Amino acid sequence: MTRYQVVTVRREIGAAELLDAEEFRQRMTSHGTLVANILSSPGSGKTSLLSATADRLSPEFRCGVLVGDIATDRDAQRLADHAPAVQLTTGGACHLEFSLIERGRQALGDRELDFLFIENIGNLVCPASHDLGEHLRVLLLSTTEGDDKPAKYPKAFRTSHALVISKCDLLPYVPFEVDRAVADARSIRSDLAVFPTSSRPAQGLEAWCDYLIDQRRRLLGGHPCRPNR
Amino acid sequence: MTRYQVVTVRREIGAAELLDAEEFRQRMTSHGTLVANILSSPGSGKTSLLSATADRLSPEFRCGVLVGDIATDRDAQRLADHAPAVQLTTGGACHLEFSLIERGRQALGDRELDFLFIENIGNLVCPASHDLGEHLRVLLLSTTEGDDKPAKYPKAFRTSHALVISKCDLLPYVPFEVDRAVADARSIRSDLAVFPTSSRPAQGLEAWCDYLIDQRRRLLGGHPCRPNR
Repeated sequence: MTRYQVVTVRREIGAAELLDAEEFRQRMTSHGTLVANILSSPGSGKTSLLSATADRLSPEFRCGVLVGDIATDRDAQRLADHAPAVQLTTGGACHLEFSLIERGRQALGDRELDFLFIENIGNLVCPASHDLGEHLRVLLLSTTEGDDKPAKYPKAFRTSHALVISKCDLLPYVPFEVDRAVADARSIRSDLAVFPTSSRPAQGLEAWCDYLIDQRRRLLGGHPCRPNR
Repeated sequence: MTRYQVVTVRREIGAAELLDAEEFRQRMTSHGTLVANILSSPGSGKTSLLSATADRLSPEFRCGVLVGDIATDRDAQRLADHAPAVQLTTGGACHLEFSLIERGRQALGDRELDFLFIENIGNLVCPASHDLGEHLRVLLLSTTEGDDKPAKYPKAFRTSHALVISKCDLLPYVPFEVDRAVADARSIRSDLAVFPTSSRPAQGLEAWCDYLIDQRRRLLGGHPCRPNR
């Protein structure tokens, strides 16, 4: 039994449809759906974070996930136990563009959603330049990548509202200073919300989920955070 | 005192110069310089690997390093204690293109080199599509990124000659099976040379350096490995 769907687009994604991202964002707002776009390097733990997040938000909130990858549907398979998931496969392209998001939302069907999560391609560079119609851009940085990443990938940090630091359970074994990474990131974007977490064992997820719920409350109240491109 | 140089090119790198990559490769061959292009995600340990590699190869062999980053010269600062290093800053672009390599080699001056290492931008996607005139393409994958990466980033694995697995000291703490990652990678490229390593403490570097020395010997003997794009 297929528990998820696959949308594959090869080399036909184009820049023209980016103009529709703002219309999509407004439509999602009117439906009460907070859209969060998750950016990170390969292997920082996007799928693990979203699985744990969906588990915590359900059943009070209805979640859906669009999962971007260059190839394979492994992440949608992993997520399907936690939330309705649609795999978006770019067939080589290094980032998601808006046209895939619109198709992915349609593939999720008519179900109402409180949260729509977009797991972007594992890439700290190119996805930062593409508006996917999200309300919230979230950057995920794992402790194993090093605390020097904010200054080296400034656009990803500058355009994100929140920073989730993953794999904090590995802090005793890696040269990563949380304070240094946060100071570096906030020198690029001073109002960045920061959430240190780990998933083995689960830590820090409550504050992160509370933040998401609060952001949705602001959205419903007519006060969403502003996209900052 | 500046111990390294910075070459900055903003948005002027173009595809046309890629045609010169083959000429550069042949020129480096005639000079006895093995050129190795190192690809990985952000934070996999490219700079640490190259620092340790230069330490082991010197003084018997003369090494130079071209260090790609989107912003900052932190990696060239780190490398300058180990080998002559030139920082290549793309000002936003997600990969190195050949024009920067030619300028970087010129910036290293007239010194003869046995090995020229290129540390590419931290990105497992876009750099795989660009020939930098290298003889050897090396993919660095850290154990903390997960053993599911080969199938998800197939072009980077298909076009690489060697796979260095870094951070093997963290294997007791992360869900990474070396055998699974290697089998996955070799299902994409069967002749991939594989080197499990760690830099804290240093392990596996001798086999890796022996491989480099052997590849240079083949180059001097007129039998370099073939670029496989």
